[in-house]
Amino acid sequence: MLDSTLVQKIIDLALEEDLSGGDITSTLTVPEGKGGAGELVAKEPLVVCGLPLVGRILQTVSHGSGQVKLHTSEGQKVQKGAVLATIQADLRSLLAAERTILNFLQRLSGVATLTARVCGRARGVAVLDSRKTTPGLRVLEKYAVRTGGGRNHRFSLGDMILVKNNHIDANGGSVSKTLSRLHASAPLYMPVEVEVRSIDELIEALPFNPAVVMLDNMNDREIKRALSVIQQSGQAMQVEISGGVTAERIPKLKSLGVKIVSMGALTTQAQNVDISMRIKNR
Amino acid sequence: MLDSTLVQKIIDLALEEDLSGGDITSTLTVPEGKGGAGELVAKEPLVVCGLPLVGRILQTVSHGSGQVKLHTSEGQKVQKGAVLATIQADLRSLLAAERTILNFLQRLSGVATLTARVCGRARGVAVLDSRKTTPGLRVLEKYAVRTGGGRNHRFSLGDMILVKNNHIDANGGSVSKTLSRLHASAPLYMPVEVEVRSIDELIEALPFNPAVVMLDNMNDREIKRALSVIQQSGQAMQVEISGGVTAERIPKLKSLGVKIVSMGALTTQAQNVDISMRIKNR
Amino acid sequence: MLDSTLVQKIIDLALEEDLSGGDITSTLTVPEGKGGAGELVAKEPLVVCGLPLVGRILQTVSHGSGQVKLHTSEGQKVQKGAVLATIQADLRSLLAAERTILNFLQRLSGVATLTARVCGRARGVAVLDSRKTTPGLRVLEKYAVRTGGGRNHRFSLGDMILVKNNHIDANGGSVSKTLSRLHASAPLYMPVEVEVRSIDELIEALPFNPAVVMLDNMNDREIKRALSVIQQSGQAMQVEISGGVTAERIPKLKSLGVKIVSMGALTTQAQNVDISMRIKNR
Amino acid sequence: MLDSTLVQKIIDLALEEDLSGGDITSTLTVPEGKGGAGELVAKEPLVVCGLPLVGRILQTVSHGSGQVKLHTSEGQKVQKGAVLATIQADLRSLLAAERTILNFLQRLSGVATLTARVCGRARGVAVLDSRKTTPGLRVLEKYAVRTGGGRNHRFSLGDMILVKNNHIDANGGSVSKTLSRLHASAPLYMPVEVEVRSIDELIEALPFNPAVVMLDNMNDREIKRALSVIQQSGQAMQVEISGGVTAERIPKLKSLGVKIVSMGALTTQAQNVDISMRIKNR
Amino acid sequence: MLDSTLVQKIIDLALEEDLSGGDITSTLTVPEGKGGAGELVAKEPLVVCGLPLVGRILQTVSHGSGQVKLHTSEGQKVQKGAVLATIQADLRSLLAAERTILNFLQRLSGVATLTARVCGRARGVAVLDSRKTTPGLRVLEKYAVRTGGGRNHRFSLGDMILVKNNHIDANGGSVSKTLSRLHASAPLYMPVEVEVRSIDELIEALPFNPAVVMLDNMNDREIKRALSVIQQSGQAMQVEISGGVTAERIPKLKSLGVKIVSMGALTTQAQNVDISMRIKNR
Amino acid sequence: MLDSTLVQKIIDLALEEDLSGGDITSTLTVPEGKGGAGELVAKEPLVVCGLPLVGRILQTVSHGSGQVKLHTSEGQKVQKGAVLATIQADLRSLLAAERTILNFLQRLSGVATLTARVCGRARGVAVLDSRKTTPGLRVLEKYAVRTGGGRNHRFSLGDMILVKNNHIDANGGSVSKTLSRLHASAPLYMPVEVEVRSIDELIEALPFNPAVVMLDNMNDREIKRALSVIQQSGQAMQVEISGGVTAERIPKLKSLGVKIVSMGALTTQAQNVDISMRIKNR
Repeated sequence: MLDSTLVQKIIDLALEEDLSGGDITSTLTVPEGKGGAGELVAKEPLVVCGLPLVGRILQTVSHGSGQVKLHTSEGQKVQKGAVLATIQADLRSLLAAERTILNFLQRLSGVATLTARVCGRARGVAVLDSRKTTPGLRVLEKYAVRTGGGRNHRFSLGDMILVKNNHIDANGGSVSKTLSRLHASAPLYMPVEVEVRSIDELIEALPFNPAVVMLDNMNDREIKRALSVIQQSGQAMQVEISGGVTAERIPKLKSLGVKIVSMGALTTQAQNVDISMRIKNR
Repeated sequence: MLDSTLVQKIIDLALEEDLSGGDITSTLTVPEGKGGAGELVAKEPLVVCGLPLVGRILQTVSHGSGQVKLHTSEGQKVQKGAVLATIQADLRSLLAAERTILNFLQRLSGVATLTARVCGRARGVAVLDSRKTTPGLRVLEKYAVRTGGGRNHRFSLGDMILVKNNHIDANGGSVSKTLSRLHASAPLYMPVEVEVRSIDELIEALPFNPAVVMLDNMNDREIKRALSVIQQSGQAMQVEISGGVTAERIPKLKSLGVKIVSMGALTTQAQNVDISMRIKNR
Repeated sequence: MLDSTLVQKIIDLALEEDLSGGDITSTLTVPEGKGGAGELVAKEPLVVCGLPLVGRILQTVSHGSGQVKLHTSEGQKVQKGAVLATIQADLRSLLAAERTILNFLQRLSGVATLTARVCGRARGVAVLDSRKTTPGLRVLEKYAVRTGGGRNHRFSLGDMILVKNNHIDANGGSVSKTLSRLHASAPLYMPVEVEVRSIDELIEALPFNPAVVMLDNMNDREIKRALSVIQQSGQAMQVEISGGVTAERIPKLKSLGVKIVSMGALTTQAQNVDISMRIKNR
Repeated sequence: MLDSTLVQKIIDLALEEDLSGGDITSTLTVPEGKGGAGELVAKEPLVVCGLPLVGRILQTVSHGSGQVKLHTSEGQKVQKGAVLATIQADLRSLLAAERTILNFLQRLSGVATLTARVCGRARGVAVLDSRKTTPGLRVLEKYAVRTGGGRNHRFSLGDMILVKNNHIDANGGSVSKTLSRLHASAPLYMPVEVEVRSIDELIEALPFNPAVVMLDNMNDREIKRALSVIQQSGQAMQVEISGGVTAERIPKLKSLGVKIVSMGALTTQAQNVDISMRIKNR
Repeated sequence: MLDSTLVQKIIDLALEEDLSGGDITSTLTVPEGKGGAGELVAKEPLVVCGLPLVGRILQTVSHGSGQVKLHTSEGQKVQKGAVLATIQADLRSLLAAERTILNFLQRLSGVATLTARVCGRARGVAVLDSRKTTPGLRVLEKYAVRTGGGRNHRFSLGDMILVKNNHIDANGGSVSKTLSRLHASAPLYMPVEVEVRSIDELIEALPFNPAVVMLDNMNDREIKRALSVIQQSGQAMQVEISGGVTAERIPKLKSLGVKIVSMGALTTQAQNVDISMRIKNR
Repeated sequence: MLDSTLVQKIIDLALEEDLSGGDITSTLTVPEGKGGAGELVAKEPLVVCGLPLVGRILQTVSHGSGQVKLHTSEGQKVQKGAVLATIQADLRSLLAAERTILNFLQRLSGVATLTARVCGRARGVAVLDSRKTTPGLRVLEKYAVRTGGGRNHRFSLGDMILVKNNHIDANGGSVSKTLSRLHASAPLYMPVEVEVRSIDELIEALPFNPAVVMLDNMNDREIKRALSVIQQSGQAMQVEISGGVTAERIPKLKSLGVKIVSMGALTTQAQNVDISMRIKNR
């Protein structure tokens, strides 16, 4: 995912917002060409995510110079004080890139850390993310979810069909009219997921044999009932529980037979973890 | 700040990551030209932030059509269930823009809500943000801080001078050498802030009469001592407390005479608040 | 698909290559503000595709003025001489936009026309496109395929998994090693297609139950054999015939039980159809 | 022409449409850092065009690594099976760049191959292209025309003046009014071409001594007559035959004294040639 | 030329450099939605140039609102105190756009004013500009030259061939080798200009019948001699005097028979004229 | 300041306007791969500015090859004939980049040279620039001012507050209302400058203790009076003289006690200095 062309765009935008006026302090106080080194240090326990971006940001700022040496790897759980990587570069570039590097690492490691915490309680249940991501960071935050042990739901409105009530309502409330239209011209291999909010809606959707049924905002009793209805239909579809899923509730859901849950909270409730750069002159 | 040219760039990038393949579900199921309306609803108590973006995102997606009617205003505290705004547009555009609109609102209102909570405990003390913002969202998150009652520290490396130890070390550890260089060629009106980590460093910095002194990571005793040293110097500078500042600690700091604190947490620890769009066909 | 953010980018690039120096002839010879009208006329029988772009290109060139009235609709088969649409605008903008409008229409209608011709012989067999599209026009050419009655295969390297021999070779030639790795961390709902070039490879792939098996470059006898092997496996997967598929061969393939073929030729062998703009002064 | 700044833009757009979601299959199945090699192989006889783009695309995808070794040169006619070039790179980059490299080569070699076929029949007659090029590929397709032995007409609306009937009509149908206006303020050295559709129009245009006269859509008898009128005028201008020109007709036109023809078909009727990449692990 | 796609790019860049942080003063002091008007006033005698940009800049800043009423026209000579145009818009947008509007007008009117002054002394001699323009403003400054009564030389390295000594040296100093190569594959209608620095070089170039000969850095005696050599050759080419041309020298050159001079000074020596905006609240 | 992200944008735009059609002359006449060298030579006495851009422009054109060796340094005063730098590169790239390199150097050195001339007369008085810069070149021209010995005023509307009469008028003419609003929510450390045009306005502004007071368009008598009023107020603010400042007037202003003047003329009245590239084949 880090090979997405969107990654360089958010790096460029992040640098632009910090450096469109240049780094005036360093320009005025650091001699040109003076070398330096920086260590990226975890200030709290965390799951590392974003290391491959360090070199890219540095290269962009320094127009090609600078070296990064990694001491940890993506997804590794580290303790407070761990040195994640060492950067060698000219000091001006290092200082100009410092905050942008840290802002990416702190956010992505924050998402990975939260995801790892949730997944630690969800053995045997796949935990999916959502499109509730920070604007501009979609592909990176989904990468962080995967780094933390979660799985990715669709990346954008263009790579999967997810029929919600709004779509069905736009067809006069007719599930069959909606799904027939879809099957006529959808990209042939694109999976179709249908969101249902009640057993009635589920029963209406089943004959269309969607690849995935999303049970939205149902309580345990409804979920149990829905799983039973699906099983009786004999159809082989995936079932996703969405809405009101918390790390605490997953074991209970698992006991009901749930295998997939999706949680917007992986990205919306993640807080940045604390990482700093310790700079040394050379 | 919403007139920043950076705002349209992050909107464009957010739409690109969701819509580079188009909204395939809506294209296939919603009749072209069908109208619709959407209500933005608070799903929890929150401080509203980001409403002016709703129209801009909608206009970008719909190539100029669509109307937004606001029912609340920026910075207002609303309860769960409050309708923030109503959007009228063609249904396809509405559905295509929905998630991007919500992702911006949830993030910005999240920052504003946290900031308001902190500032509620900080009467008489100015609470500043930092450059520890989400990549690409700098100007918007700082706008959210202001909306929540906080104040803005510098926006980028280019609009203020902040001399840290790294800069001083790059000059052989000499504060005087560093600051003399600065004064010779800095943009004349650009304020100079100096970060000090001990009373010794403070004493060294005072003769250069910086506009702001940042006391970094000091405990209450050190802060008290520092404020006294500054007062005795008779110099009129602002004093900022940074590092280890929490909402809980602010009253104590205030009692020591502190008037300004800065907290990266306003943006790094904010969690998105829950806002949804209730869509109605027309 | 026309709501893809990529569409405006290729429009902008097309205008840039024609207009970075402006339209010098019209600037020097056409009075400013003079109105005009243009009729888009089919110069040969064709399937119409690209009409919604006409207005967008015109708006971009004219900074918002200009009107388009459509006389046909996307996918309609028209005869030589048919007027597809009428454009009203200031004459300078009309002349500046003319060639770009026609270049898009001629290419897209060319793809739609070829696709319709192929699909006319392929009743009951879905004809898919490929990623062998003109650089920069991917989303538009795939839209043209759909307009002509074809179906879309994946849009990009990011929206579906297609395991080819290169990927298997990179895992020491082990299908099982390759597909196990995949299942561990792939986006959960993303379909997996496996390309096989022999019955042996097919048998190796079957236990992994891919959503789609692509039979690549097989002759009729091999295809018959492969379909039989799949049927005996009792697995419900889609089977795509790729390589060496021509319009003439499809009926034979259909008789073998084939339901899906893919043809890069829909886009690589399409020739532009002839459409001109008849301009009238007002 | 490959030094045009437009070339990198269409490369970037082509990569964006294929890689905005990254190459998910290769990311999941190919070990990071694994090397590979690819051979570009002609699958049919063709005139090679586009080789200098291979390295540029590879560099863009691989952020600077990778090597290309050419075995043929631009414009060379090769047989089926010929190896055009060998690429060494990390396997992930190679697979991510493969389709984009081939899409450019197949299109450009297709245009060069068709042009070479036409020019082979046109000894002594210059064959020009037109602005009827694929959106976004103008400069590259014109390069392919030149590679195939054709000559380039103007590149854009800004680099040459071409007065058509629309321009004359906008001046009340007065050729003299139109051309006088032109001569007053046109860039001094920019050549003026006038399109005429009848002998009457030609006679009207001659006194203005255009650099080029385009005889548009005339039959052989009209062309003969027009050439005679021009010769008698004693003026030294170039004469271009446009509209209804085919490879088959060129010898006849040559016998009439025609020296220049222009054919939109060089780009609008070209079909991609077949080139594949044979990948080898290292 | 103002329809060049480059014009919006330099407008966008100019706004970005002034407004990436927004207009903080106006945001904080001007009530949202408050209307205003501004008059553009000449503070010295000048030739007006750039008025069509006023509306475009305003629209870009105000996202589509605002009106401009012109009181003068491009190329008009006005006296100190003249009101060039009146702008109605919301006051915040007006203030945010003010400096950018003025910076464009002052520069372009400066170039037009200088050009008009030079051309006033050059009746009967065409005064051409060069590519010595301000980076990013090429097309606009050339427009200003034309507005002031000058004529345009080539716009870029791609729209005309200009053979200089460097090109001839790269071919072993052989003019014939250089020009033969050119004639084989140059865009057919693209004019060829050859720069010569001595009578010997001129004599060498003449047989190739270039469209234009540039006499570079010659004194009056050499120019006289060169014109005589060209006349005796009986060839119909344009002759351009370049290097060391000043407004004062033009009458003398004219007396020698010179009809075309080129002067980089039109753009390199132009100084901005003084224009201000008088703002009125509504 | 050269680390501003805006610098690469104006370089890219400058190259685009010269090279969107490529360098046709060099492509057709210079053998591919032929090496060359170029010397940048001062054609008149000047203060050097812009050397660090030479390498960047060259790298952009040559996709990474090419070497620059500097023989002078930024801000150095050189005589006619001085060689500023030597460039080694492939000859095609060198010729393609030549004009763009020179256009930047000539403009920036022009600004630096004028600034140095002004500052030579202004010992003890700081000479500031303004936002009256060439569109797209703001950060570079301000860099040139600093290189010439001047000081920088604010860079954009976003990095400093400058209250003008327009802002005060928008608040019903009330200075106190305007400044109170400001103090409530301005970025805490952002300096506030207030422009006053009379002693009355000055007296009104003083109680708000602005960081800077700008005395706009005052004559010597008024300035003397204003300085006296400020001194009597006992407040420590900076005082800037703006409007009608010339190099000749500065000594007189200094004698009145003025320490800071601002002059838009540093950028609006600067003329390009003459620098050429002497090219040598290798």
